[in-house]
Amino acid sequence: MRTELSTRLGVEHAIFGFTPFPAVAAAITRAGGFGVLGAVRYGAAEDLARDLDWMERHTGGLPYGLDVVMPARQVEGVTEADIEGMIPEGHRRFVADTLSAHGVPELAEGEASGWRITGWLEKVARSQLDVAFDYPVKLLANALGSPPADVVDRAHHHGTLVAALAGSARHARRHQEAGLDVVVAQGYEAGGHTGEIATMVLTPEVVDAVDPLPVLAAGGIGSGEQIAAGLALGAQGVWLGSVWLTTEEAELHSAALTRKLLAAGSGDTVRSRALTGKPARQLRTAWTDAWEDPDGPDPLPMPLQGLLVAEAVSRIQKYEVEPLLGTPVGQIVGRMTTTRSVQAVVDDLTRGFERAIDRINRIAGRA
Amino acid sequence: MRTELSTRLGVEHAIFGFTPFPAVAAAITRAGGFGVLGAVRYGAAEDLARDLDWMERHTGGLPYGLDVVMPARQVEGVTEADIEGMIPEGHRRFVADTLSAHGVPELAEGEASGWRITGWLEKVARSQLDVAFDYPVKLLANALGSPPADVVDRAHHHGTLVAALAGSARHARRHQEAGLDVVVAQGYEAGGHTGEIATMVLTPEVVDAVDPLPVLAAGGIGSGEQIAAGLALGAQGVWLGSVWLTTEEAELHSAALTRKLLAAGSGDTVRSRALTGKPARQLRTAWTDAWEDPDGPDPLPMPLQGLLVAEAVSRIQKYEVEPLLGTPVGQIVGRMTTTRSVQAVVDDLTRGFERAIDRINRIAGRA
Repeated sequence: MRTELSTRLGVEHAIFGFTPFPAVAAAITRAGGFGVLGAVRYGAAEDLARDLDWMERHTGGLPYGLDVVMPARQVEGVTEADIEGMIPEGHRRFVADTLSAHGVPELAEGEASGWRITGWLEKVARSQLDVAFDYPVKLLANALGSPPADVVDRAHHHGTLVAALAGSARHARRHQEAGLDVVVAQGYEAGGHTGEIATMVLTPEVVDAVDPLPVLAAGGIGSGEQIAAGLALGAQGVWLGSVWLTTEEAELHSAALTRKLLAAGSGDTVRSRALTGKPARQLRTAWTDAWEDPDGPDPLPMPLQGLLVAEAVSRIQKYEVEPLLGTPVGQIVGRMTTTRSVQAVVDDLTRGFERAIDRINRIAGRA
Repeated sequence: MRTELSTRLGVEHAIFGFTPFPAVAAAITRAGGFGVLGAVRYGAAEDLARDLDWMERHTGGLPYGLDVVMPARQVEGVTEADIEGMIPEGHRRFVADTLSAHGVPELAEGEASGWRITGWLEKVARSQLDVAFDYPVKLLANALGSPPADVVDRAHHHGTLVAALAGSARHARRHQEAGLDVVVAQGYEAGGHTGEIATMVLTPEVVDAVDPLPVLAAGGIGSGEQIAAGLALGAQGVWLGSVWLTTEEAELHSAALTRKLLAAGSGDTVRSRALTGKPARQLRTAWTDAWEDPDGPDPLPMPLQGLLVAEAVSRIQKYEVEPLLGTPVGQIVGRMTTTRSVQAVVDDLTRGFERAIDRINRIAGRA
């Protein structure tokens, strides 16, 4: 499964695996794919350095990437405390009431909220980049628009390709104008932040919009047949995130959440602003339902919502309060029914891809 | 482009084209695809007979199908007048106010509403079937669940295959249990009634759920690359509806609507209950916006909403009131940018398919 882009990056399979877990990212790379470590959860740059050290020791010189969340525009001098101050009291009360309705215990005195997305703060993202460029990161992906121009320049200077996610052809063209090298076309069915356009429609639109830039198809891809479909749509590779969540290497640290993921069907996700303030596909839970309730408040815009719910999410995760427990995940969650190693998943993907090619060649009268 | 199903039906390309226009259906069949005529707009059985006569004269013995809207369960003895009586006065007022806000003229005294979906009434659908079985209809598709058991038996007795649309694996299994021969897996991005699951995820789920029944992929398919993707996902054919709306043979009878379709992007559709009471993807218009307004009433359940808005839709269409003018159409509307003949569209689809096969074989190292 070789495209111009996969050849350029030196990977065997044009399978890009996004994951917040270093053990998963390294295993994807070792299996012949391209592991991309999500950095948004790293508050401290030292933690990222520690995990990139680990990645170095466990990828044997094979290529991998890093995914950051860096807004292109950021208001100067705004601190996290300023943003906290913009959260309405009624919203805080709604969160407290929802948690207490489900009997979610408080964190211990002085215990920090573990789930705290600070990576989107430009200061944090930049300190992550200072670390990242000490490592042979081959691809830097940005989840939230094009990165600032100086970051693109710096990456190119280091020989690092820059990618960004796009939910529309318009977004994709903006990335091209910003000098990016790769566009990840992320369809409606994907986990995490998504637009309304489904992968089947979005991929070829983006391919045409940014030609000759390489495009990765993302959203709804968790099998070799789906990889074949994504590549048939003109992509130079596929970008998979959800499918790794139930691998043996994933450090979800929650048996209850793993159980929920393995049991969920393709109809059990919802595109909700409840987690970050922007529409993100995730497991449908009592938490997302609470934010859909017309009698409750609307979620706040990003970044307010993420700050508002950070402690709540930590408490829900820590105490594994099952009805509220969720995670970003795409519609392919319906196909995630067993726990397997990353290697087994990749083997399955490549075998399924070959089967799909055999079948479509028979249909095309070429077998 | 040959599958077991296309061979069984005797068509050259496994391309199934759904359309309300006999001239389009016949042209699809003549171009080597399988034209499926939508019957829901035919009130009188004689009108359907006249158009099927026409189809017979213009398909030269090549196969075609018919699409009806027949609910499996229907309440006995309920008349259209009974249903009209269930429409709240406030809803009628809201429709009248929305029309007058846009200056939509009244129909002339005694002029019947042209847009009147009566095909969903069991009585009407059955009278259509009485006509249909006088013609060599090779496939009978039902847009609303499995048809009643006696209809399935009757079709099989006539050597007609029976298909039905499904938006989930659960729906699809119900069709299989009802003895149907083909399932059309209709994804979220499709025009008309759709569920939440995108084609990329839905198709393989349905293929697995009803194996060995043949599945057609529907939703987001308007190019040869998308056909290759749908077939890679395990489908035995593709089902296209939107792409024919802007062909030369389409009888939209509205230059304004054609213009809107040609100008619309993939983000200009919305899944709304405003037209029939069930979520159906359509052009986003001031009409669908009015029904999204939180201060307005919610759309009524099917079939009430369809009856409520029938005259309004006729008036909007007759007077071509541009802001309100819409039609069911899928997200691929963004790719419908020129008016071409059906033959030119089919040529483009098959050429694009061959190109996609070439490309994917190169990626798979088989070229």
